[in-house]
Amino acid sequence: MERPPPLGPELRTLTIELRELYDEIADLLDRDQVERLPAYFTDDCLYQVISRENHDQGLPQATIFCDGITMLRDRVLALRQTQVYEPRHWRHFVSGVRVVSVDGDEIRAQANFLVTEAMSDAEPTVLLVGHYHDRLVRRDGVLHFRERSAVYDNYRVVRSLIVPV
Amino acid sequence: MERPPPLGPELRTLTIELRELYDEIADLLDRDQVERLPAYFTDDCLYQVISRENHDQGLPQATIFCDGITMLRDRVLALRQTQVYEPRHWRHFVSGVRVVSVDGDEIRAQANFLVTEAMSDAEPTVLLVGHYHDRLVRRDGVLHFRERSAVYDNYRVVRSLIVPV
Amino acid sequence: MERPPPLGPELRTLTIELRELYDEIADLLDRDQVERLPAYFTDDCLYQVISRENHDQGLPQATIFCDGITMLRDRVLALRQTQVYEPRHWRHFVSGVRVVSVDGDEIRAQANFLVTEAMSDAEPTVLLVGHYHDRLVRRDGVLHFRERSAVYDNYRVVRSLIVPV
Repeated sequence: MERPPPLGPELRTLTIELRELYDEIADLLDRDQVERLPAYFTDDCLYQVISRENHDQGLPQATIFCDGITMLRDRVLALRQTQVYEPRHWRHFVSGVRVVSVDGDEIRAQANFLVTEAMSDAEPTVLLVGHYHDRLVRRDGVLHFRERSAVYDNYRVVRSLIVPV
Repeated sequence: MERPPPLGPELRTLTIELRELYDEIADLLDRDQVERLPAYFTDDCLYQVISRENHDQGLPQATIFCDGITMLRDRVLALRQTQVYEPRHWRHFVSGVRVVSVDGDEIRAQANFLVTEAMSDAEPTVLLVGHYHDRLVRRDGVLHFRERSAVYDNYRVVRSLIVPV
Repeated sequence: MERPPPLGPELRTLTIELRELYDEIADLLDRDQVERLPAYFTDDCLYQVISRENHDQGLPQATIFCDGITMLRDRVLALRQTQVYEPRHWRHFVSGVRVVSVDGDEIRAQANFLVTEAMSDAEPTVLLVGHYHDRLVRRDGVLHFRERSAVYDNYRVVRSLIVPV
């Protein structure tokens, strides 16, 4: 079996840029600033949180599914204005940010995520473990997500999944 | 909501330098070489391990609190010479090292940490999950911590917290 | 106690290259493409998965032990053709990739790993936590492992360990 060639300088720089972007989004989610999330997506974006089982079989059923920026903004609004839930604190651990391919203006990238959740009277637990499966494009030189699929390994989600991952 | 601009070359280099520093300290703690820790701090440093609840409300009560390099050195000495505890092995997972701001000579930076603890007859468990909240300055060109606050999400710490995080 | 000097530009670049390599291998293991693993090793390689207890005392007993590329290839073949086991999905979280030393043509490097395992009817759990202890050399300009020791903190391995870490 052959190995892929080592990264050239352009892919290396792109990988570093992507890691910064992934860490920036993880941080805003950890700070509960989800209102800032839509600014990272294109108008025609797909954002979803989906089980690996469904994703790998091409089944459309997703835990969170936003088709286009308007749905994503609506999701954030609903979260703040209509939903009632117990306060919780998340913390993202992102590992293995990698460029999968560059095809024309589109970059495919991926990373592993582990999200811990702390509620007011319980120890932090590992809430979700999975894999970002992303497609990105540049708009005015700045990277935006055309797709972010947060594909989780969990066979079920303990407690309800309310905010984006 | 606006996005912050992408990092310029100076902040990118600083982020890489910070990641090296964070990984270096995590490694010395994992190796139980805590005697080496004070060399990373300024004389007027603040080092603390504190719950998020207290930190966010500005309450001073911290699990470990060292005000100045002398207290930090004393803490390390006490740990080695006066305390008796069961051997344990820690492992740090640091994610999302980021520059928060640069203001004059002071850099504010942050990262998430997850620390596992293994004792001789039990599986490794997630001991602490939290967030480094740091202020750094250069001394002779080398980064030193003026403040390191290890702010944990846990609502309590299982077993006693003996060594710095 | 003195601090080591900050990394110069060569060690910084090498660290970035190593992180790419570690993430690449973690990804192929997460994808269950273990057939691709031997291409990252030298002919005279040592690959082992071993407990910290045995490793630190110099005891040879390892959970997986491959002395040379032929044994490593054989291990992969056995895994695919003769072993029967319940499907499982792993996810690697790698933190703290660092150069330990460069001595002639040999690079010593290390990183922490946390591996989660998801089976079809159970939540992902932390399967293994530990430390890569590696020696690498360049062959035709490309980094290869002369040794990879995956040293785990677990005092025992829950369920059997079938695939490389």
